[in-house]
Amino acid sequence: MSTGKIRRPRAETPKGFRDYFGAEVTERKAMLDAIAGVYHRYGFDPLETSAVETVEALGKFLPDVDRPNEGVFGWQDEDKDWLALRYDLTAPLARVAAQYRNDLPVPYRRYAMGPVWRNEKPGPGRFRQFYQCDADTVGAPSVAADAEICMMLCDALEAVGIERGDYVVKVNNRKVLNGVMEVAGLVGDDREAERGIVLRAIDKMDRLGEAGVRALLGAGRKDDSGDFSKGAGLSEAQADKILRLLMGGNYIQLEDQIEENLGALKSQFPADSRNAGVLSNLMDLVGDSVVGLEGVKELSMIADLLSSQGYGPDRIVIDPSCVRGLGYYTGPVYEAELTFEILDEKGRKRQFGSVAGGGRYDDLVKRFTGQSVPATGVSIGVDRLLAALQAKGRAQADDAGPVVVTVMDRDRLGDYMAMAGELRAAGIRAEVYLGNPKNFGNQLKYADKRRSPVAIIQGGDEAVKGTVILKDLILGSRIAESATLAEWKDRPAQIEVPRVDLVAALRKMLDQ
Amino acid sequence: MSTGKIRRPRAETPKGFRDYFGAEVTERKAMLDAIAGVYHRYGFDPLETSAVETVEALGKFLPDVDRPNEGVFGWQDEDKDWLALRYDLTAPLARVAAQYRNDLPVPYRRYAMGPVWRNEKPGPGRFRQFYQCDADTVGAPSVAADAEICMMLCDALEAVGIERGDYVVKVNNRKVLNGVMEVAGLVGDDREAERGIVLRAIDKMDRLGEAGVRALLGAGRKDDSGDFSKGAGLSEAQADKILRLLMGGNYIQLEDQIEENLGALKSQFPADSRNAGVLSNLMDLVGDSVVGLEGVKELSMIADLLSSQGYGPDRIVIDPSCVRGLGYYTGPVYEAELTFEILDEKGRKRQFGSVAGGGRYDDLVKRFTGQSVPATGVSIGVDRLLAALQAKGRAQADDAGPVVVTVMDRDRLGDYMAMAGELRAAGIRAEVYLGNPKNFGNQLKYADKRRSPVAIIQGGDEAVKGTVILKDLILGSRIAESATLAEWKDRPAQIEVPRVDLVAALRKMLDQ
Repeated sequence: MSTGKIRRPRAETPKGFRDYFGAEVTERKAMLDAIAGVYHRYGFDPLETSAVETVEALGKFLPDVDRPNEGVFGWQDEDKDWLALRYDLTAPLARVAAQYRNDLPVPYRRYAMGPVWRNEKPGPGRFRQFYQCDADTVGAPSVAADAEICMMLCDALEAVGIERGDYVVKVNNRKVLNGVMEVAGLVGDDREAERGIVLRAIDKMDRLGEAGVRALLGAGRKDDSGDFSKGAGLSEAQADKILRLLMGGNYIQLEDQIEENLGALKSQFPADSRNAGVLSNLMDLVGDSVVGLEGVKELSMIADLLSSQGYGPDRIVIDPSCVRGLGYYTGPVYEAELTFEILDEKGRKRQFGSVAGGGRYDDLVKRFTGQSVPATGVSIGVDRLLAALQAKGRAQADDAGPVVVTVMDRDRLGDYMAMAGELRAAGIRAEVYLGNPKNFGNQLKYADKRRSPVAIIQGGDEAVKGTVILKDLILGSRIAESATLAEWKDRPAQIEVPRVDLVAALRKMLDQ
Repeated sequence: MSTGKIRRPRAETPKGFRDYFGAEVTERKAMLDAIAGVYHRYGFDPLETSAVETVEALGKFLPDVDRPNEGVFGWQDEDKDWLALRYDLTAPLARVAAQYRNDLPVPYRRYAMGPVWRNEKPGPGRFRQFYQCDADTVGAPSVAADAEICMMLCDALEAVGIERGDYVVKVNNRKVLNGVMEVAGLVGDDREAERGIVLRAIDKMDRLGEAGVRALLGAGRKDDSGDFSKGAGLSEAQADKILRLLMGGNYIQLEDQIEENLGALKSQFPADSRNAGVLSNLMDLVGDSVVGLEGVKELSMIADLLSSQGYGPDRIVIDPSCVRGLGYYTGPVYEAELTFEILDEKGRKRQFGSVAGGGRYDDLVKRFTGQSVPATGVSIGVDRLLAALQAKGRAQADDAGPVVVTVMDRDRLGDYMAMAGELRAAGIRAEVYLGNPKNFGNQLKYADKRRSPVAIIQGGDEAVKGTVILKDLILGSRIAESATLAEWKDRPAQIEVPRVDLVAALRKMLDQ
């Protein structure tokens, strides 16, 4: 209708967003279904909150503590209230736990899965929308709830195809960290910034190594690009305490004075001397810090419960270097790492790393109600876990294409549709070619693009004879892959069968 | 840490949004899975686009043509580009079809499911986030693609539990409507507004009846509240043509002069005289309008194909009063209605109405590429369909609660966790009570709130004896419902069994 030039809209996803096609969708769905099955069997109930929350309900809990105001996609609604897309599934749960506090069972075990959105700089493999799959227990003060989540996390990883030995769940306790910082002299509200620096330094142990962390604990550190990161200002002796905590996590030789405590602890955890050794080390490090000792005791209870259920250090370990980035954790924290190596984009071997994490956050519901509500939970990074499964060749979805019924005679479309209908009624994925049927080669190219296993052909001759031709489309590519043709000799590339035998003959061909 | 008063955030969903709990989530999931199964079997591939699109890619295609600028949740990103949440799944598909036009198979059959967002006034049962479940064929000019979608829609409805006879798929063609408007004299760009009024008037036939629609086709109509809606300004004779079109859809007695055409048409559609009658009526109404005749011919091809696949007028009917609100349809349109009656909130009987709709839109991809791409597809309103299933008591999800292992002795938590673990390993949903175990009554109240079928109890005595007690929690409520106690006589409310028989005994109790 317009005569002037119209600028056409660009057909693009917004920066940092992407589309998922075919098997990418079904593989993720298969994974979510498997995880949900485990969560459900543990008694967790599904909850689905909306993608949109009020900004005040979401709060400012994004991991990047340097930019607490940023990180969400937000807008002002017609009543001038600020709304935003959820950035995780924990903040909406805290809101739900407060909103329905008189109706929900106590404890409330819930699972949730779905996309979350972060308004952050996108990068390679880093998108602004990604899936999380969470399970949380609200209202259970006992660390048995934390132990249960850790066990369930192991079961979930195994349910999606991560084999035992290919992952480890690391458990730590923020109270232990706080105790060590107390012993190192970092106490009081005015030292909160330094405590934050220490936590983040510990979190970087894997990347920076001992020297780098030591610099961050002390005067500060200049990175390769010359940027300077302020340090926590600890003395060498104080930094030593923190570093010994971390090294304990890496199972270094226990020192003599720690050995003394080990006997007593070992009798508490006879089945699990490895975790017992770490606990003994921690007990020494927290000295007489009340919160630190409470933290070690909680960890020992968790280790005890896990051990009683057969979840030993081959699956779950106490690891004092496990910190978790989020500021709101108040007790046990846990993280699942995949231990197998993959090749990175430059072909170098590296460990796959973290795919899930969580911990205890007793104060999130309190924001709304003023009353402290104990809560603990885990979040599985579904897209990362899926990438890991794909790297191991273990993604579960079936991405076979449909059987394609070709169209030789446009006037007999009804006949072709009837063939596809019969196949579908027999549970076989099937479709009629609905492009321009003129060029038969295009129909076969289409079938190839669809990864179709078999093409069905019925020209005029076959129609008169009452037969159909089944053309095996994967045979050719298999022969190309195979060294010898011998094994395919007995298998014809196409067969002609009576029309009434279509389903049976096709089944046979698909099963070969 | 703060001493002053802090205003706490309100624990509320934003206006027009809601949370879904437990069975509400699993029932919807079961429904989506069933529909996806049908779509997939028809050869459709899944596609998942992100929730966020650029505003320019989305375009302005919301049904409410009076407010083309409104209706979406949008915001400006850091590069000053406007982004928005998708309001349907068709606009993102058009963007994808343009963006990946060199990679996708032609035709491209895809299905998609997920939430969409509308920034509209919320009302009872009307939310700003709701699910859609779409299937579309892009690149197939033949109306066989439309016929296929209609068949698939029937199969999808039956797959989720809507029985044959409880729904009807109505098919019409915008070209027929355009032909009738042409005959009525509503031609040319300057009459677009009037054509819009006619379309919307037809859409309101169910609600306003013949007199109301006649008023809208003519001088206009004052509604009960006194508001005046402008009419299309048609003469009585012109309005008659339109109304005859609508009445044809309701299968009124065919007039004499139409009977003449029927013979010829019937020989074309021998199997389906009902649709043939409607088609004959339409052919008369469109007179010599080229576009109108093309529309009737397309409808007759669709009716023919459907009839050849056994989808007769008991499931799919040609209905000239079916319009569909959206402005972008260019050919066949279709709509699924549930025909059974439900009671509305005031206890009055009413038909459930529309749960799905779609049609052909050949110009949506053209917006991006300049080249016309034929496309047709359907959108199922998942939340409405779910409400219908719930009204019929046919929602499919199992919302049984978990078996609850109670905690009699806090020191033996490991033993209780082992029981739950054994049950889960046997595929039984089970959990340990993780609230404060002091008050045993609270544990049973919790189990009741969880709809738990059985509680497991092991106190100190039982532990010594090596037994467990299984308490049947649904028995009590069943006895209360049942008129006589007799049938429950042989079934004890609780049994004590050896610990080693826990799983077997529980299975037996659950199967009763």
